[in-house]
Amino acid sequence: MKVALIGGTGNIGEGLAFRLKLAGYDIIIGSRSEEKAKSKAEHFNNLVESLGGKGDIEGRLNDEAAELADVAVITIPWQHAFETAERLKNKLKGKIVISPIVPMVVENGIFRYTPPEEGSAGLKLQRILGESSVVVAFNNIPAKRFANPAEKFEWDVAVCSDDDDAKKVVMEIVSSIKGLRAFDAGSLDSSRTIEALTPMLINLAKKNKTVELGVRFV
Amino acid sequence: MKVALIGGTGNIGEGLAFRLKLAGYDIIIGSRSEEKAKSKAEHFNNLVESLGGKGDIEGRLNDEAAELADVAVITIPWQHAFETAERLKNKLKGKIVISPIVPMVVENGIFRYTPPEEGSAGLKLQRILGESSVVVAFNNIPAKRFANPAEKFEWDVAVCSDDDDAKKVVMEIVSSIKGLRAFDAGSLDSSRTIEALTPMLINLAKKNKTVELGVRFV
Ligand SMILES: C[C@H](OP(=O)(O)OC[C@@H](O)[C@@H](O)[C@@H](O)Cn1c2nc(=O)[nH]c(=O)c-2cc2ccc(O)cc21)C(=O)N[C@@H](CCC(=O)N[C@@H](CCC(=O)O)C(=O)O)C(=O)O
Ligand SMILES: C[C@H](OP(=O)(O)OC[C@@H](O)[C@@H](O)[C@@H](O)Cn1c2nc(=O)[nH]c(=O)c-2cc2ccc(O)cc21)C(=O)N[C@@H](CCC(=O)N[C@@H](CCC(=O)O)C(=O)O)C(=O)O
Ligand SMILES: NC(=O)c1ccc[n+]([C@@H]2O[C@H](COP(=O)([O-])OP(=O)(O)OC[C@H]3O[C@@H](n4cnc5c(N)ncnc54)[C@H](OP(=O)(O)O)[C@@H]3O)[C@@H](O)[C@H]2O)c1
Ligand SMILES: NC(=O)c1ccc[n+]([C@@H]2O[C@H](COP(=O)([O-])OP(=O)(O)OC[C@H]3O[C@@H](n4cnc5c(N)ncnc54)[C@H](OP(=O)(O)O)[C@@H]3O)[C@@H](O)[C@H]2O)c1
Repeated sequence: MKVALIGGTGNIGEGLAFRLKLAGYDIIIGSRSEEKAKSKAEHFNNLVESLGGKGDIEGRLNDEAAELADVAVITIPWQHAFETAERLKNKLKGKIVISPIVPMVVENGIFRYTPPEEGSAGLKLQRILGESSVVVAFNNIPAKRFANPAEKFEWDVAVCSDDDDAKKVVMEIVSSIKGLRAFDAGSLDSSRTIEALTPMLINLAKKNKTVELGVRFV
Repeated sequence: MKVALIGGTGNIGEGLAFRLKLAGYDIIIGSRSEEKAKSKAEHFNNLVESLGGKGDIEGRLNDEAAELADVAVITIPWQHAFETAERLKNKLKGKIVISPIVPMVVENGIFRYTPPEEGSAGLKLQRILGESSVVVAFNNIPAKRFANPAEKFEWDVAVCSDDDDAKKVVMEIVSSIKGLRAFDAGSLDSSRTIEALTPMLINLAKKNKTVELGVRFV
């Protein structure tokens, strides 16, 4: 199964790239710059090989990555994610599109959830990509710790979607990563609370002087 | 320190009563019925004694409990909590008032967060009790497991308030219970997300066929 990370050259892209590659998925890094995509792919492949895996991650332009993908993850900041999704709409038709997107702003050091009028980033993405199956997941994973191969973590990932089959596929993708446990969080409407959890996790870490935090449901 | 559980004869009251008694607090159970309060207090005292503690929990009418309290916890369902708080307003002047209240409804087996116009139960309670220091805490603790003395749990409790001193006191109360870890969650505004987490935890447990869930920030 080909998983494309659209804008996968950034923070959350790193952890997803090497961990999903080690789990056996075919990974494509998408970028606005082919050079940047290939450079990042090479970096990830070195990491994968050093961890005993097969370094065959590809680097492509976002359009090509979306074309080749079976499943696409929109690993782009919320301020730019939707315009990119709009542009890739046709290439993502009939495919599963994962949204780890969290819309938020920071004021006086405090993060605040700022959902669009649709109610959440996931709901907005589903409105834009009418012929894709949007699945919300990975929103509460702290990217830096996730990108550290030496990091030991136990995190729960709430997965929600209006397409039950797509949700099942994404729950398997989540479960393929050691240290992650997938929870079925129901329909896309649940994305409001899932996404809102992220600014809370960031604020908790700052206020309580802890490492960056994920969540567990126990 | 006298901690009164207003409406403490119910589900969350049980766990709070015996665990805070064992931690050394003076506990008063409040009820609309003096007989019910005393009966429950006797039940809790038997439990406390069986666990090696001092069974001196008192049972009182809510008004008296509020009068005697240093700290009051409003352990009443959201549909009735605010009218009770309104009635006890004067007796709670200058005191710390803890809100574990979560406003929600269930439709087709799915729980949904239904905050009042103030934005959250905690914010509404603070508006009503203008001369009390409202602190939001304990909202994400599943009552039945919490009331089971044999239950082993590790849960995090997000504590928020607009009064930093009151918040500190409540964080100590939380920390006094083995298995609970208090997190400073900032100002009362954070209560929106803290409260919304509860219907999500209930839905996750049902959908994924797990025990009732609390939360950890890791
Ligand atoms: C300030 C700066 O932080 P930053 O890179 O902007 O990252 C801040 C946040 O974006 C980052 O914490 C995100 O993971 C927050 N975050 C999310 N941030 C988002 O923007 N979007 C999200 O969806 C998101 C989700 C999320 C989920 C859980 C969670 O716990 C955090 C989450 C930074 O890098 N600071 C350094 C301090 C300085 C530093 O980098 N020193 C390095 C030097 C080497 C280097 O620079 O890498 C060192 O450690 O020595 C650090 O904290 O590591
Ligand atoms: C359906 C009924 O459930 P209930 O008593 O109405 O409780 C349902 C929910 O309210 C309960 O799960 C709450 O804890 C949910 N809940 C909250 N519920 C709220 O109403 N308000 C809250 O603020 C709240 C917070 C909360 C936080 C975390 C969390 O995980 C759950 C939370 C029930 O008791 N069912 C039984 C099944 C039948 C049964 O009781 N059998 C017993 C018989 C003995 C007995 O009845 O006690 C047995 O043999 O085990 C059960 O699940 O144990
Ligand atoms: N950071 C976290 O801890 C974290 C955790 C969970 C979820 N998320 C979510 O994951 C997404 C990515 O977060 P991130 O921290 O990884 O972001 P990031 O590193 O800041 O950016 C990721 C990539 O987005 C692309 N990008 C930037 N501006 C763009 C634009 N105008 N148009 C198209 N692409 C653009 C860039 O790729 P190119 O330059 O190669 O095109 C960049 O490398 C966000 O939606 C975020 O909410 C983040
Ligand atoms: N259940 C949970 O898992 C849980 C977890 C965390 C937080 N909470 C929160 O804690 C609060 C209490 O929940 P609970 O499950 O413990 O509730 P509960 O057991 O259903 O009720 C608690 C008590 O409220 C009193 N009460 C009922 N109707 C009242 C009315 N009209 N006026 C005044 N008092 C009334 C009753 O006491 P008397 O008959 O003795 O007066 C009752 O025993 C809620 O706000 C809830 O959101 C619950």
